[in-house]
This record gives sequence, C-alpha cells and structure tokens, in this order.
Amino acid sequence: MSDKKTALVISAHAADFVWRAGGAIALHQDKGYEVTIACLSYGERGESAKLWKQGGFSLEEVKATRRAEAEAAAAALGAHDIQFFDFGDYPLEIDTNGKYQIVDLIRSVQPNIMLSHSKWDPYNSDHMFATQIAIECRMIAQAWGHKPGEQVLGAPQLYLFEPHQTEQMGWKPDVFLDISSVWEKKWAAIQCMQGQEHLWSFYKNVAENRANHFRRNSGGQAGGKSAKYAEGFQSMYPRCVDEL
Amino acid sequence: MSDKKTALVISAHAADFVWRAGGAIALHQDKGYEVTIACLSYGERGESAKLWKQGGFSLEEVKATRRAEAEAAAAALGAHDIQFFDFGDYPLEIDTNGKYQIVDLIRSVQPNIMLSHSKWDPYNSDHMFATQIAIECRMIAQAWGHKPGEQVLGAPQLYLFEPHQTEQMGWKPDVFLDISSVWEKKWAAIQCMQGQEHLWSFYKNVAENRANHFRRNSGGQAGGKSAKYAEGFQSMYPRCVDEL
Amino acid sequence: MSDKKTALVISAHAADFVWRAGGAIALHQDKGYEVTIACLSYGERGESAKLWKQGGFSLEEVKATRRAEAEAAAAALGAHDIQFFDFGDYPLEIDTNGKYQIVDLIRSVQPNIMLSHSKWDPYNSDHMFATQIAIECRMIAQAWGHKPGEQVLGAPQLYLFEPHQTEQMGWKPDVFLDISSVWEKKWAAIQCMQGQEHLWSFYKNVAENRANHFRRNSGGQAGGKSAKYAEGFQSMYPRCVDEL
Amino acid sequence: MSDKKTALVISAHAADFVWRAGGAIALHQDKGYEVTIACLSYGERGESAKLWKQGGFSLEEVKATRRAEAEAAAAALGAHDIQFFDFGDYPLEIDTNGKYQIVDLIRSVQPNIMLSHSKWDPYNSDHMFATQIAIECRMIAQAWGHKPGEQVLGAPQLYLFEPHQTEQMGWKPDVFLDISSVWEKKWAAIQCMQGQEHLWSFYKNVAENRANHFRRNSGGQAGGKSAKYAEGFQSMYPRCVDEL
Amino acid sequence: MSDKKTALVISAHAADFVWRAGGAIALHQDKGYEVTIACLSYGERGESAKLWKQGGFSLEEVKATRRAEAEAAAAALGAHDIQFFDFGDYPLEIDTNGKYQIVDLIRSVQPNIMLSHSKWDPYNSDHMFATQIAIECRMIAQAWGHKPGEQVLGAPQLYLFEPHQTEQMGWKPDVFLDISSVWEKKWAAIQCMQGQEHLWSFYKNVAENRANHFRRNSGGQAGGKSAKYAEGFQSMYPRCVDEL
Amino acid sequence: MSDKKTALVISAHAADFVWRAGGAIALHQDKGYEVTIACLSYGERGESAKLWKQGGFSLEEVKATRRAEAEAAAAALGAHDIQFFDFGDYPLEIDTNGKYQIVDLIRSVQPNIMLSHSKWDPYNSDHMFATQIAIECRMIAQAWGHKPGEQVLGAPQLYLFEPHQTEQMGWKPDVFLDISSVWEKKWAAIQCMQGQEHLWSFYKNVAENRANHFRRNSGGQAGGKSAKYAEGFQSMYPRCVDEL
Repeated sequence: MSDKKTALVISAHAADFVWRAGGAIALHQDKGYEVTIACLSYGERGESAKLWKQGGFSLEEVKATRRAEAEAAAAALGAHDIQFFDFGDYPLEIDTNGKYQIVDLIRSVQPNIMLSHSKWDPYNSDHMFATQIAIECRMIAQAWGHKPGEQVLGAPQLYLFEPHQTEQMGWKPDVFLDISSVWEKKWAAIQCMQGQEHLWSFYKNVAENRANHFRRNSGGQAGGKSAKYAEGFQSMYPRCVDEL
Repeated sequence: MSDKKTALVISAHAADFVWRAGGAIALHQDKGYEVTIACLSYGERGESAKLWKQGGFSLEEVKATRRAEAEAAAAALGAHDIQFFDFGDYPLEIDTNGKYQIVDLIRSVQPNIMLSHSKWDPYNSDHMFATQIAIECRMIAQAWGHKPGEQVLGAPQLYLFEPHQTEQMGWKPDVFLDISSVWEKKWAAIQCMQGQEHLWSFYKNVAENRANHFRRNSGGQAGGKSAKYAEGFQSMYPRCVDEL
Repeated sequence: MSDKKTALVISAHAADFVWRAGGAIALHQDKGYEVTIACLSYGERGESAKLWKQGGFSLEEVKATRRAEAEAAAAALGAHDIQFFDFGDYPLEIDTNGKYQIVDLIRSVQPNIMLSHSKWDPYNSDHMFATQIAIECRMIAQAWGHKPGEQVLGAPQLYLFEPHQTEQMGWKPDVFLDISSVWEKKWAAIQCMQGQEHLWSFYKNVAENRANHFRRNSGGQAGGKSAKYAEGFQSMYPRCVDEL
Repeated sequence: MSDKKTALVISAHAADFVWRAGGAIALHQDKGYEVTIACLSYGERGESAKLWKQGGFSLEEVKATRRAEAEAAAAALGAHDIQFFDFGDYPLEIDTNGKYQIVDLIRSVQPNIMLSHSKWDPYNSDHMFATQIAIECRMIAQAWGHKPGEQVLGAPQLYLFEPHQTEQMGWKPDVFLDISSVWEKKWAAIQCMQGQEHLWSFYKNVAENRANHFRRNSGGQAGGKSAKYAEGFQSMYPRCVDEL
Repeated sequence: MSDKKTALVISAHAADFVWRAGGAIALHQDKGYEVTIACLSYGERGESAKLWKQGGFSLEEVKATRRAEAEAAAAALGAHDIQFFDFGDYPLEIDTNGKYQIVDLIRSVQPNIMLSHSKWDPYNSDHMFATQIAIECRMIAQAWGHKPGEQVLGAPQLYLFEPHQTEQMGWKPDVFLDISSVWEKKWAAIQCMQGQEHLWSFYKNVAENRANHFRRNSGGQAGGKSAKYAEGFQSMYPRCVDEL
Repeated sequence: MSDKKTALVISAHAADFVWRAGGAIALHQDKGYEVTIACLSYGERGESAKLWKQGGFSLEEVKATRRAEAEAAAAALGAHDIQFFDFGDYPLEIDTNGKYQIVDLIRSVQPNIMLSHSKWDPYNSDHMFATQIAIECRMIAQAWGHKPGEQVLGAPQLYLFEPHQTEQMGWKPDVFLDISSVWEKKWAAIQCMQGQEHLWSFYKNVAENRANHFRRNSGGQAGGKSAKYAEGFQSMYPRCVDEL
C-alpha cells in the first residue's frame, strides 16, 4: 500500500471510465492520488459495434483491441493502474469468486474514493449491475472476518459518474468537479476510443455544459468561479464534515 | 458588510433554530463566521402550549416570552445577530412586502451558507412555507434588477436542517457536521427553551445518534473519525469542488 | 361536542365525497360515528357541465341544484351533518379568514379521523388545494394559542380518498375498507348525482375492484376475507398501535 | 378561432421560450400550426443582468428592451403571435384576475398542445409557479360554468420543456422532437437574446446532445433515425392512441 | 423475418398476457402486425390454484392444461405466435442460457414494440423478474458481438402492461389504447382462462374504466374521443417524434 | 401448527432482530403470539469485528459465539423459537434450495405477520437481499402447486423494521408500536450482544425517540397516548379493515 491517497474507478466496460470520469482520474492523479481503474469487461460484445461491423475479428481480437484502447486512454489520463477482469459483457455476470477478486483489488488499493455507474439504467443492465457489485464488494471489503488479518476497508464515498442519458437513469449530480486543468488529457483519452467516434463531441458538449452548471452553482452572474470543463457526480453516502 | 464569512438561518418559529441548527450556529461562530438568525414568527400561537395552558398571558406577552427565550438561546450559541419578523404563525403568512424584508436581510448578510427547514412537512405547513420563502427570497436577492445598485447575492448553499420526524418529511441528510466541540453551548441553548422541556432529551438523543452516523460514514469500525455529537443537513443544491 | 366518535370529510366540490368516501361515511355512521361533510364549494362552475350545457341557469341556481344533490346524497348516506362553505370553484381560493372558518368546524367536530383529496392532481388543482388546506387547518386547530380556551385538536389521521385517475395523482392506498354492508346506501347516494351520470358505473367498477384488492390482501385464494365492495385510502400519518 | 391546429407556450420570462421550445415553435409553425407565445413577465428584474450591470436603464426601459428581443426571437421562429402579460418577475405573482386573463388567452387559442416549465425549480420559483398557473388555468378553461357560452377547452397535453439543470429540477423527458429542419431559425432566435450570450453555446450543445438521444432511442447503431438537433419534453398527461 | 411490423409480449406466466395486453395483441394483429407471445412459464405452481385444489393432477398435467388455455386465448386474440419457455414459476429463474434463448426469439421477431410487466411487484417477484429479463435481453439483442452476423435489434419501446394492483406496483400509465374494436376477442380470450374465473369481471371493469380515462384524457366533456374499452401502458423509454 | 397467532422475523444476521424488532418480538409473545426468528446467517464475517480484532477465533468459533448471543437474546425476549440457516454473510447468498428451506419454515409457522429489513440499504446488501428473499419466499409459500397438499400461506403483512440509517435507506415508518411494557426485555436482549456494545445506547435513544413520535402521532400536547419506548415499522402491503 502507498502513503498516497488513492481512488478506484469501477467501469463495467473498457471505455466507460473515459467519458464519465476521465477528468476526475487525470485531476486526482495531478493532485497526487494514485488512481486505479478496474474494467469488469472489455465491452467486447456490446460496445464494439464498429469492429463487428467491419468484420474479420474474433472475440479475443476484439477484446485485445478494446484493451489496447483502454490502456492508451488510461495512459493519456496518467492513471496509476488499470486492471481488466474479463467477466464478459452483455450480460456482465459475476459470481462469488469474481466478487472476491474485486474485493482483493479494493483492499489492495484501499481507496479514499470509489467511482462507478448510476444505480438504474434501463438501456444497459451491465452498468447498474456494476454499481450493485461495487456496493456489495465495498461491504465485503469492510468485513473483519473476510480474510481475517488483511487490512479492512474504511468507508470511502462512492461517486456515481454521469450516464449517457442522465434523466432516464434517475441520476442527479450533487457535486460538480472542475476539470479545466486536465481537459486536454481527457480529450486525448477520448480520442483513444477509435471505435466510438460518434460519442466524442457528445462528451465534449457534456463537459462544457457541466462547466456552465459549475459556474452557476458557485455564484453565477454574481461571481461564479471560472470553469471551462467539468464533470458531475452523484454521492451514494453522506459526507462527514467539520464545517458546512 | 463584514469581511468575515457569514451564515443565515431562517427559522419559521422562534425555537426551531435551536433544536435543528444550534450546533452549526455555535460551531461556525467559533470558526469565525458571523451567523445571523431570522425568526419569521415567535411560534406564539402554535408552539407555546405551556404558556397557554398555564393561562393569563396575552398574545403579546407570549411573543415577548418566546422572544426572550430565543434571544437567550442565540446568546448561548454566540450568534452574531438574531432578527424577528413577527409575520405570525399557525399559519405563517408572508406577502410580497414581507418577502422584500427578508431579501433586504439576505442582501445585508450576504450569507455564504443559508439554513432552513425541510421541503415537506405535513405536520407543520409553516415549516415548509419557510423553506419555500427561503428559496424564493434567495432568487430575488440574486436579481440585478431588484433594487438596482445593491450588491446581489451569489449562490449560497441552502442546507435543510433536521425536522422532528425525518422520514415523514422525506428529509435525507447528505452532510453530517461534528458539533462535539460546541455541544455544551447547544445544550445550554436548548435549556433556554423552558416551554418545551419535553424536547430536550429528544434532541440530545438525536445529536448522539447523528454522531454515530458521523463515525459510521467516516470509517466505522475501520477507523471512523471521532464525534460525540453531530447534526445532519440536506443540501438543496450541488457543490462545486476542485477535488472529490 | 358529542360523546360519539366523529369523522370529518373535506370535499373540494359538492359531489366529491360521494364517489370517493360515500362508503366510509355510511359505514362509520352505522358504527356510531357522527360524520360531518364539509363542501368547500358547490363545484358550480367546473363540475356542473350538464346544467350549463342545458342552459338557462344562473350561477346561484346551479349552486342551489348542486347543493340539493349533495344534501340528498348526504341523507342517503345517513351523514350526521353537511356544511357548505361556498368558497367558489375553478379555482377554489381560501383566504386566512376562510381557513379560520374551517378551523372552527374542525374544532367543533373534534374528528377522530379526517378525509380529503390526494396530494397531487394535475387535472384539478382545487383537489390538491383542498388537501393543503386540510393539512394547514388541522395544524391551526392544534394550536393552543389559536382562540385560547377552546378545546384544541388532537392528531387525527388524515385519509386521502381515491382520486379519479389514481396513478396520475401519485395516490397509493394503504388501507382497504370493506363497505359491502352499506353499498346500497352509497349506490343510492351516487344516483343523487343526476348531473354526473357518466360516472356512476365507473365508481361501481371501482368499488367492485377494490373489493378484489381487499380479498387479495386479506388472504386471497388461501382464504381472504369476503368483501363485495370496498374503498381505498392513503394515510398521511403513521399509526400508533399496541399490536402489529 | 382558426381552423388550424394551434399551440400555446407559457413562458415565465421573456426569453424562456427561446432556449427551451424555440425548435418546437418553429417546427409546428412549419407544419401549419399557429403557435402563440405567452410571456408572463419580461424577466426584467431577474434575467436582465447585463442591462442592469451596464446601468442607466429604468425598469420600463429594461422591459422594453427585453420585449423587443422576445418579439425579434418570436419573429425569427415564425411564431403566429406573442403576448406579454407584464405580471412582474422575481417574484412572478398572479392573482385571480391574472388567472382569468390567461384563461381568456387559452380559450381564444384553443391549443391542441400547451408547453410550459418544469414542475420543480429550486433556482427559480417563477418557473415552477408558471407551471402551476398553466395547470390551474387549463382547468378553469375547461369549466363550462366559467363565462358560460364560451367554447370550453378540451384536454390538451401539457409538455414541460427543458430547464437549465434538468436533474436538479427532477425533469425527465419522455419525448424527443427532431428540430433539425428548423435549427437555423432557433439559432437565429437565440442570437436575438443579446443580454444572455453566455447561454448561446450552452443551448447549442443541448440541441446537439438531445439529437444524440433521439438517434439512440430510435435505433442507435442498429439504424436510428437521423437528427442533428432535437429538443426534449416531459408530458404531464397520458396520451390516447389507436396504436402503440 | 417478415416485412410486417411485429410485436413481442413477454409474459411471466401463461395467463398474464390475456388480462394485461389481450386488447393490444388483438388490435395490433388487426392492424397488420405479427404479434408473438412468449410465456416464460406456465404459471403451473403459482397461478393454477383451481387445479391443485381440485387435485389429481401432476405438474406436467397442470402445465399442459395451462398451455392449452393460453393457446386457446392466443388463438382467440388472433396472435401470430405463442412460444413457451417452461422456465418454471414461483420462482421463475432464468440462467445465462435461458437469456440467450429469449434473445434468439427477440432477434427472430425483431419487434417494433415489446410488452412486459411492471418494474416492481411485491406480490409477485416473477413479474418483476420478467421485466428485468426483458430489459437485459433487449440489450443483449442489440449487441453486434452477440452471435456476430445476425441482425441486431433496434431500440423498440418496452411497454409495461397493467399489473393487478397498479398503485402498489408504482405503475403509472402514460398511454391509453382504445381496444373497443377488439373487445369481443379479448373477452373471448379471458373466458379461456377457466382456472381464474374470479378475475373475469375484474378485468372487464378495468377495461371499462380505462376507457373512461381514455375519454377524459382526449377531451372529456369538451369532446373526448369515444372508447368503450381501453388498456393502459407505461413506456420505459422516451419516444422520438417529428411532431408533438 | 399452533392455534395461536404467530409471527416470523427474518433477520439477515444473527443480531439484527434484537435492535430492530426486539420489542415487537417480546410484546407479541406477551400477547400470546408464537414468534419465530429466522437468522439467515450468523453475521460471522461482517458483524463480528470485535471477535476478529481480538483474534484467535476460527470462523466456526465466531459463528458459535454469535449463535450463543442470538439464542440468549431470543430467550431474553421470550421468543418461541429461533432458527439458524447458516447461508453465509458478506455476502449473504441463497440459492433455490435455500429459498425452499425458508418456504418450509414459513409454511410451518404460518405467520400472521412477517418482519424483515428495509428495501434498500447501500451499506449492507445482505439486508436488502434478505427482504427480497422474504418477498419471494412469501410468494412461493402461497403457491398451491408448491408441494401440493401442504397448507398454503395466506397474505401476512410484511413489516420492514428500522434500519441503522433510516433516511439513507429510504425507509419510512407508517406504524409505531408501543413497547414500553417489554422494554426491560429488549434492553436485556441488547445486552446479550457483547460484540456490539457501541450500539447499545444508540438503540436506546432510538426507542426513546420513537416513543416521542408515538406520543406525537397519537395526540401530542392535546393528549397523546403515553409511551416511553417504541419501535417503528414500514408496511409493505395495504391493510384490510372494517373501520378506519
């Protein structure tokens, strides 16, 4: 374990972390955190349409391509580490043993903060399943009787990052994070996603508009804080503070 | 206007601020904030049962008694200022002119944070009306065309403090504040409420149990932060941050 | 005040109590309650289409017709009393003085239970306003400082009766009441509503289907209690019991 | 009354209709509807910061400026009519007589569809009040006893247009409208809002991203319908159809 | 695959489609759709009480009886096809392989619309599980990497049909469908359900009352469209339209 | 089966029933019910931190210790029976066979009322899984075709008992139960939980404060019923009554 602060991003498919939390990853790395990304699958079957349309790839080749893209994106963001679990996608399914593998990672990272998907997603049940697993594995990692002797997990916040259609997922951000200083890194990471070029400008728009919300909520026309790009997150748990 | 950070507590009746935000008031004063309390009414008709049962008091005498108690409590908390609007209670009713008076106060205080009641309260419509008014007056105070030339309001967070029956009010805290260091002040303020002695131990229990939640959410058995007394708050608006 | 148990039904328009709580009224009268019905308006403008289509009536004549129907329905149900406030409809508007009149009625009845409309109704804002007023006046009636010396109100349950399109109103029944023994009275009261014959069979169907729900929730095919007609209600407040 | 289909947009302030429903207005005009815009206020105090910061304007001059902008925008959209009620803003307040004026407009337009704001808006209580009024006046306009002899209103859908921070307002779109064919008109109308240039690119981004949602919900990568710009709406009432 | 429009109804137990979507099935067949019904189980254990009470049947005989009833009902509705998966009921459990079988059916039908149960059902977890499976299999069917080369699914609407106790299931219809023209077929199909005669009149009442809602929402007393029988549905996804 | 009324408490871990429903258990025993407690696991891994910190225990020894505590607590409450399923905790996982074991217990107890956890718990997925299982097994127990010939279950209410952080779990009590007469038994049972002494005063505070809510909802200052200790419960299903 490191003395540094750490973060753990749990991504259902290989690319999810880029669009939804790329800014947070790069920013916290810049701030001295060690950020680990866990990809539960490669999104090989459901989020690799371009390759399948192109044809000629085996499932393993699609996985390898997606993995390479994700590793490139993680590098662009300066992420400390990226782990691939290869649990399969569409559907993502994780058994008890798979949960334990995730718990092992959580315990080894000892994250100060965790990030994952929205609670509900009728377009993509893999996404909501990833969040359910994140909650469950966070709980197991806190158990003193799970692999007794290991360091148990504290109570890290679980931030739900922005889904593709926020309102349909019932996702409501309560935190806006200024990612202006790392935007170029996020934009570079986005461009690693060669298979999903149709989403690039979408998420650029999102970042710009979340910055508008950031400015509005920090003072608006009466002197909001400047921000050109931002990301939104929904907290799963209450915060504990010494000052409001 | 002061150079200090400021807070504004909008309390439907004279005693509400004590039970629900007394710790936050004392704590922020200790931290150098100037905290102003606005009592929209004295709670003279609906929250002074003991005096009315005792008998022999005129409405004005009840108001004076309640005011004295509230002033004593504010003093016990070290509050910077307490203002009484005398809009009447059960029901609390505020017309356009009344709103403008509240806006005047908001603008003169220029609060960094505001505090008021829960959004819904089927037991006490005065409470939810106070919150509605807080939201509306916050908006008016932000308008450049309201008394042009005055300093407009930024975008302070509005914290909803804890109602008496949280679940019935649909109130969900997302912040726990450690008030251990000022508990003695809050307890002293509570004891100023001679007419509502039946609530003293109730709110002591609340403070103790919210401290349990504070410890649980900050790490629990794996090393939560110590807190003997706490208060919970629900944020109305998202936060804008530079780090999660 | 009577020694008997009492109930108070607050109906936005003259006919509402018939469709929505007619069974409860007749049943509780049979059980020895004194049930008072308060009609806040006659529904003269918005719920008297048949008369207006027919033509030749003045507003006062429409009111008189609706009042006569409502009185006949109340008589058919055996209601103890029916009061008309004539606050106007579409929109129903009630000022402070109007609230005090309702509080006077509440205090004179001292209801063990109150009944009114659903909390939300995008088809009919009079309905939701009536509920808001019921909640507010219940609170005022509890205030020791409102007309000191009068007997204050306790904490009667407020049951929200069934709106016309339950799902659109967000209304969820938590109580089903067997009204089989008084169905003939309710049906007779329904037939007093000569201007709204298009609703008769609708509410007969409702009563039959709510009885199905009654049987299902009391045991279903494993021995549910018999009920041929029922009404559903949503409780606003928790119950206090000595046995689950 | 016209033989044409009609629509009525109820806008709390002068500019709201542009950002939130400009595409729908232009599109339905193109389809042969007559679209009427009702501005309940000019947004003179709360949404004219640029003018007030600039200084030297009286309230009436600000109103005139905002009115001119709104008229220019309505013209750019090809709207049939735009009406200004001048009820005041921050806060918007409408009494019974004001409601009747709106009812008069509704009845004269006899809209097939109505559009207004989201149900909840903690940033801007004028917005949610406008919706409340839209619901209430729709109801009054349906009353046979309100100005008997006039043509009563049917049951037009009320579409809630997109607020500035959708998730904070609890707004969830259930309809996406392709406005690609009229985007140039909407963009021209947006540019009429000289005082709010900081919002231009924000709403261009919104239109682009809603088009992504349109494509996704109409088939996505398996052949969604093309759309470059779209608007989202939330329906207040159910639809009645002959085919799913 | 057919050139015709198609619909797919996913029914947890053999009889569910009759009560809840029988009208939609018959109507869309009449309109030229090919409607396929998928029964995930026969409801052999949990919805065949009459047979079990009667006694003397083996599980397979109960299944056969239920299957025959369902086939007769499908025939009465004129359904294009009915498929039985025999996954078992009380509880309905479906593993990965079972999901793939359903995906195969979805892909072969290529439905323009899908229909299934409500999202929540505390009385019958099979129902909500069927909906979860429908959402998951719709997603898998959209994946270009699932059985590459097969035609992937577009983005059909998923309509949630009416559960037995709508309010307890949190089900809110946003579409009412006029089924008057096919009511006789639905009634005939209902009468095929010899084991559940206690539900016949219940669902006749439902159809009549939903027609009242249809008329109300299409104009009410100001000229609603005629409908004697209707069904209600809740849409899972937004619609994409060219006109509001 | 007994002629007595019966209750069944389904507890995810060995200690849950004590804090959350200990009063209800003791009270209903006093009233002549036979109350059976089902512990789905011992909480051996996740709720036995004290033992694991102390060290030197095997998993089986931890289970035995927790079982002994739970049995002592059940005895202190006078419970009729306590059953341990040993399904494991953190995570609690139950397969089809496990469900059938629970169904067997439900059928043998034939509970008039059932009690279990809140529907949602992001801190502890075992808790919400227990409730899901309770709902599912209640359904199976009602099926005439599950082990035909056995007595099927009726439709017992399922009460959700109080979770540790009520607002975070979305739990809302609609029933308060006066447990003053059995408080000493609950307190004794609480003291059996030697491993969780940090929770003793927390739940004493809860009991005192729920009694305040009990008094408030039964009349408050106008004459609420006396109660020194209470428990709150949320009902899953509607009640069927002969009187409101």
